[in-house]
Amino acid sequence: MKAHNIIKPSKVFPFGRDLEGAVVTIVGVGLIGGSFALALKENGFAKKIIGVSRTEGSINKAKQLGIIEYALPLEEAVRQSDFIYVAIPVDVTIPVMKQIMNLVNDKQIVADAGSTKYALCKELTVHPMRKRFVATHPMWGTEYSGPEAAVRGAFNGRSCVICEKEKSDEDAVNVVENIYKKLGMHITYMDPQNHDLHAAYVSHISHITSFALANTVLEKEKEDEAIFELSGGGFESTVRLAKSSPATWAPIFMQNKENVLDVLNEHISQLRKFKSCLEKENMEYLKELMEHANKIKRIIK
Amino acid sequence: MKAHNIIKPSKVFPFGRDLEGAVVTIVGVGLIGGSFALALKENGFAKKIIGVSRTEGSINKAKQLGIIEYALPLEEAVRQSDFIYVAIPVDVTIPVMKQIMNLVNDKQIVADAGSTKYALCKELTVHPMRKRFVATHPMWGTEYSGPEAAVRGAFNGRSCVICEKEKSDEDAVNVVENIYKKLGMHITYMDPQNHDLHAAYVSHISHITSFALANTVLEKEKEDEAIFELSGGGFESTVRLAKSSPATWAPIFMQNKENVLDVLNEHISQLRKFKSCLEKENMEYLKELMEHANKIKRIIK
Repeated sequence: MKAHNIIKPSKVFPFGRDLEGAVVTIVGVGLIGGSFALALKENGFAKKIIGVSRTEGSINKAKQLGIIEYALPLEEAVRQSDFIYVAIPVDVTIPVMKQIMNLVNDKQIVADAGSTKYALCKELTVHPMRKRFVATHPMWGTEYSGPEAAVRGAFNGRSCVICEKEKSDEDAVNVVENIYKKLGMHITYMDPQNHDLHAAYVSHISHITSFALANTVLEKEKEDEAIFELSGGGFESTVRLAKSSPATWAPIFMQNKENVLDVLNEHISQLRKFKSCLEKENMEYLKELMEHANKIKRIIK
Repeated sequence: MKAHNIIKPSKVFPFGRDLEGAVVTIVGVGLIGGSFALALKENGFAKKIIGVSRTEGSINKAKQLGIIEYALPLEEAVRQSDFIYVAIPVDVTIPVMKQIMNLVNDKQIVADAGSTKYALCKELTVHPMRKRFVATHPMWGTEYSGPEAAVRGAFNGRSCVICEKEKSDEDAVNVVENIYKKLGMHITYMDPQNHDLHAAYVSHISHITSFALANTVLEKEKEDEAIFELSGGGFESTVRLAKSSPATWAPIFMQNKENVLDVLNEHISQLRKFKSCLEKENMEYLKELMEHANKIKRIIK
């Protein structure tokens, strides 16, 4: 046994598991980052919260709403922080994360909240500071965006996926898991490929169908009044996600394009089955398709 | 001016607008009929409520839940009733409604709650008692079915479509409108063709996409656990309608097949646009499609 294995400290992060006394930077003060900052405050975590954003308007709004106390440029914020949480569109996450990882030392912790995990994890695999990073995806969101969309009590009761736990230092994982748990989240582990596959099947396709449904109805239904009057018939819940931010979701679909295309092709083929039933007036098979779909009750209460 | 025009009574229905003292029959004591019966009771409307159902189990359940007080075969129930409300799958509505219309006199009122209106209205156009019938579609529902699905306070704040008002007697329309209004509904008028067209665009396509999405995910995602864990990502609201009853919805799609096919084709072509963007990595057009979909915010709050 080598000596340095024995003297390796079990805890490097010099603050408590609840971030007592720690300075936190939130990169991206929108729906997710903003809600995360509010949750930290609500739980009395962190000494102070610094916000980083490319958009001055967002920073001002986030300050106004009490989401952050200070605003700094990225580099300055990272240098002053003990814990850095990145919640920006997945296409900008990779370059920004590299910048951050080049700045951090082995006492700091970095986590992201991105909806895709494979590309980012792959990119950071060989980074010398990889162990200070924890790849996370809290499974919560709404169709709204920006600091105004941040809400108190978010995340509660939802799942949070952590990827490649084994590539992160134990103290870093412990702190991140502890915070998510305190926010009421259930931690689940997946490798990045599996995460992206399952996310495509369950979350990303829902967004695409919702966006496409909105476009379908906007194309066919020229009477806004009729949409409004008849929307009690189930339209609202199905189309809700179509209000989501293109800046957030377009990069997610693109980064997870292989999986999304795979499930999108299946979805089109499922719709074609319904089409064929109607064309052929095949009532029996139509009911069969719907009875099969009813099985989703088994999983979603 | 002819004498019989002068003496024609303005009100034939011998009961109050709130059905004071009237006996009501509910044909189909499930989600809609059951909720309607509960609403009548809650508002102190109607003297007594009789239930009619082909299924003994439903009748017993409806009695047990206090939805109805009495159960009778259709013919007997209609003979004893002043107001008859039909809320059964649209494929059985036509034959049952003909049976009912052959029994009623000009002091009774009949209304239906079906999700399609064209086939039924067309079928009844030449019926000698057509004027005692009011064609309605209260735009409310949930993904559940049967008497157990009936809820108090349903309909409130939603729209109710009335078709071919001019083909119904004024007193019949007045009573029906008054009841729906008292339940908190906003009345809107459409001809049956337009109703079915708009319903296909707004309501029926939402159900088909939801059924197809459930089948897509059940086909691709073999891990129930993953669906459950990740469903926070928007899946639940998009797939909610896939739990709906095939017995209710298959006949709706089939009866409105021309309109449903029309909008379904458009929907598949909208999905293909997303597919093509991903295949060609056309981020600009992808964002454009999503920004267009965002316009639904204008209509659905």
